[in-house]
Amino acid sequence: MNNIIALLTDFGLRDAYIGVMKAVILKISPKINIVDICHSIGPQNVQEGAFLLKTSYKYFKKGAIFIAVVDPGVGSKRNALIVETKNYAFLGPDNGILSIAAREDGIRKIIKIENKKYTLRNVSNTFHGRDIFAPIGACLSKGEKLEHFGKELKKMRRLNIPRPEYVENGALNGEIIYKDAFGNLITNISRNDLNKANLLLKIGQFCEKIKLVKSYNEVKSGSAILIEGSAGYIEISINKGNAARHFKAKLGQKITLR
Amino acid sequence: MNNIIALLTDFGLRDAYIGVMKAVILKISPKINIVDICHSIGPQNVQEGAFLLKTSYKYFKKGAIFIAVVDPGVGSKRNALIVETKNYAFLGPDNGILSIAAREDGIRKIIKIENKKYTLRNVSNTFHGRDIFAPIGACLSKGEKLEHFGKELKKMRRLNIPRPEYVENGALNGEIIYKDAFGNLITNISRNDLNKANLLLKIGQFCEKIKLVKSYNEVKSGSAILIEGSAGYIEISINKGNAARHFKAKLGQKITLR
Amino acid sequence: MNNIIALLTDFGLRDAYIGVMKAVILKISPKINIVDICHSIGPQNVQEGAFLLKTSYKYFKKGAIFIAVVDPGVGSKRNALIVETKNYAFLGPDNGILSIAAREDGIRKIIKIENKKYTLRNVSNTFHGRDIFAPIGACLSKGEKLEHFGKELKKMRRLNIPRPEYVENGALNGEIIYKDAFGNLITNISRNDLNKANLLLKIGQFCEKIKLVKSYNEVKSGSAILIEGSAGYIEISINKGNAARHFKAKLGQKITLR
Repeated sequence: MNNIIALLTDFGLRDAYIGVMKAVILKISPKINIVDICHSIGPQNVQEGAFLLKTSYKYFKKGAIFIAVVDPGVGSKRNALIVETKNYAFLGPDNGILSIAAREDGIRKIIKIENKKYTLRNVSNTFHGRDIFAPIGACLSKGEKLEHFGKELKKMRRLNIPRPEYVENGALNGEIIYKDAFGNLITNISRNDLNKANLLLKIGQFCEKIKLVKSYNEVKSGSAILIEGSAGYIEISINKGNAARHFKAKLGQKITLR
Repeated sequence: MNNIIALLTDFGLRDAYIGVMKAVILKISPKINIVDICHSIGPQNVQEGAFLLKTSYKYFKKGAIFIAVVDPGVGSKRNALIVETKNYAFLGPDNGILSIAAREDGIRKIIKIENKKYTLRNVSNTFHGRDIFAPIGACLSKGEKLEHFGKELKKMRRLNIPRPEYVENGALNGEIIYKDAFGNLITNISRNDLNKANLLLKIGQFCEKIKLVKSYNEVKSGSAILIEGSAGYIEISINKGNAARHFKAKLGQKITLR
Repeated sequence: MNNIIALLTDFGLRDAYIGVMKAVILKISPKINIVDICHSIGPQNVQEGAFLLKTSYKYFKKGAIFIAVVDPGVGSKRNALIVETKNYAFLGPDNGILSIAAREDGIRKIIKIENKKYTLRNVSNTFHGRDIFAPIGACLSKGEKLEHFGKELKKMRRLNIPRPEYVENGALNGEIIYKDAFGNLITNISRNDLNKANLLLKIGQFCEKIKLVKSYNEVKSGSAILIEGSAGYIEISINKGNAARHFKAKLGQKITLR
């Protein structure tokens, strides 16, 4: 078998939450491979979770099962979902976290989790990762049929990656959609949106000339650059430095390139 | 086989200590599944380690082997233990870290690790996780008999989760026994200790009305609540906020509810 | 099979970079065991990465494959290497990160990765961990012959652990080569370099008497000690305290013992 369950949450690694989810999964499905995608999504930042899931899922082999839990509505009446797509299955709350990845891969079926036969016996109001998503994901990995978990829904909540906009003078308005641990600022702008290599970047208080390069080493240490990052978006980086710190940049911050 | 060795330490994930322990385990027992419960126990905080082990172990399948190393006495004459319980085996120093979980599951046998045949050849005075507990746990997972590791002990050091106390006027004195990464304050009070839903919480300088709810969403963002957390204890939380920061709360801090 | 791929990077665990590398590896080599050695190397600190790899590799079983990516030159013309040693294979950029471990184990062959058949189809300029090293390591773990990946090189870049120096009066000049999360200061001095147990330590502004001990518990809480650490080097530690904080010590800082 050797199937994979991949986890993406905002639980962090400081507590035992992820370890306990893995215990639950392995109790039901002992041969599964569990992969941590990321557990450092900003607390309750569903949009950030949806973005990281979208940039990650396609590197996994066909059949992988994703459990994505960023869940400010845990314990409320929000639905818990299994979304079957062309190549994968995605589990998580119905708050949009699954929606960008699932739509990109091609949604086949959306199931609302209802059958309590497959959850832990006592479902808490605060930790559905352990009590619902881990056991359901594990049962799914063992070949349990999708229909057994609940009834089909016609739709789910959607989130989008915001699109950059061209404005007068050929300027391009984008925004910072992710900051990584190196301080790279991932924008919603793609390589094809840019038609020249020398640009003017406006971000917060800052307004400076910036070059679109192919590799960090084309500029000196400490210089800001634009580069097509590994997720396919234009990133604002500083060679051997930290662009987030330099530009005092925040998630969601607007930028202009022209 | 597909057995599990689960790790709980205060080693953090910044260094290579955990990676090296896994290398040692997999060299001896290549088919074992290794699960990280948590490596962010406060440095040398044995009580915190004992608490997290107690709230985690029972989610693992029968036969799982736990290696719990929070070990301020490493290199001294403190014993190294294997504790066989009804469903599991626990390895760690004899400082109480294993005691809450092991007693709850039901202690069958306590073995003092003595046989140097199963440890690494050179045992350092600072890293028994790598040199003693990892190889012994791995040998145990391969079916080596408990008796081969050392002689049986009658008892081990004990720690307890402190009990809350009723005082005059029906007030309940408890304490903060764990803070999670979300800032939730886990108390030693259980749902059954509380007989009403509207309470007055005293914590440090703060004294405020607080409601016992079933889910975060029953109150507005930013409101403090009491909620039965996933470990079965009452937690002080702030909906979409951080209670630890708000109440300037410390581990071990006393609280009163009435 | 049950072979191991071990990962050491400066990518951190806050983003999805490591999760995606694991996805790529498991897509190609589904039965491989992946072990994280450490992902918290200081950003682009090749020397620190080389040191941790050297202190870790030998605990892994024969045949383990190491992917070590601390790569300030990613996207430039620096070579990507596979180094076959007596017992292992090491993959990483040609900047010295592999060199201390590989030389210690005994270098058999150095291959420059050239064959694009084994990399991901689109190789980015910023994430060779995902696009080159993960897929090549996975193919190697499945038995692909070393020669298929590229041509043999005669040599690679070298780094060294600096040697301590004896100066006049029998004083010994060393340096801090690693700081761990506990605040222990790992020096480049080994037990055999010291010929007495009571010494005078000079580090930055500090000059104090310090004792070489066998275990932390030989001194009171809060006392500074010298102890042979688990990596075989003398460490400056404080019993139940944090030596890095106490001595305001930095990586690479010079020390004198006499």
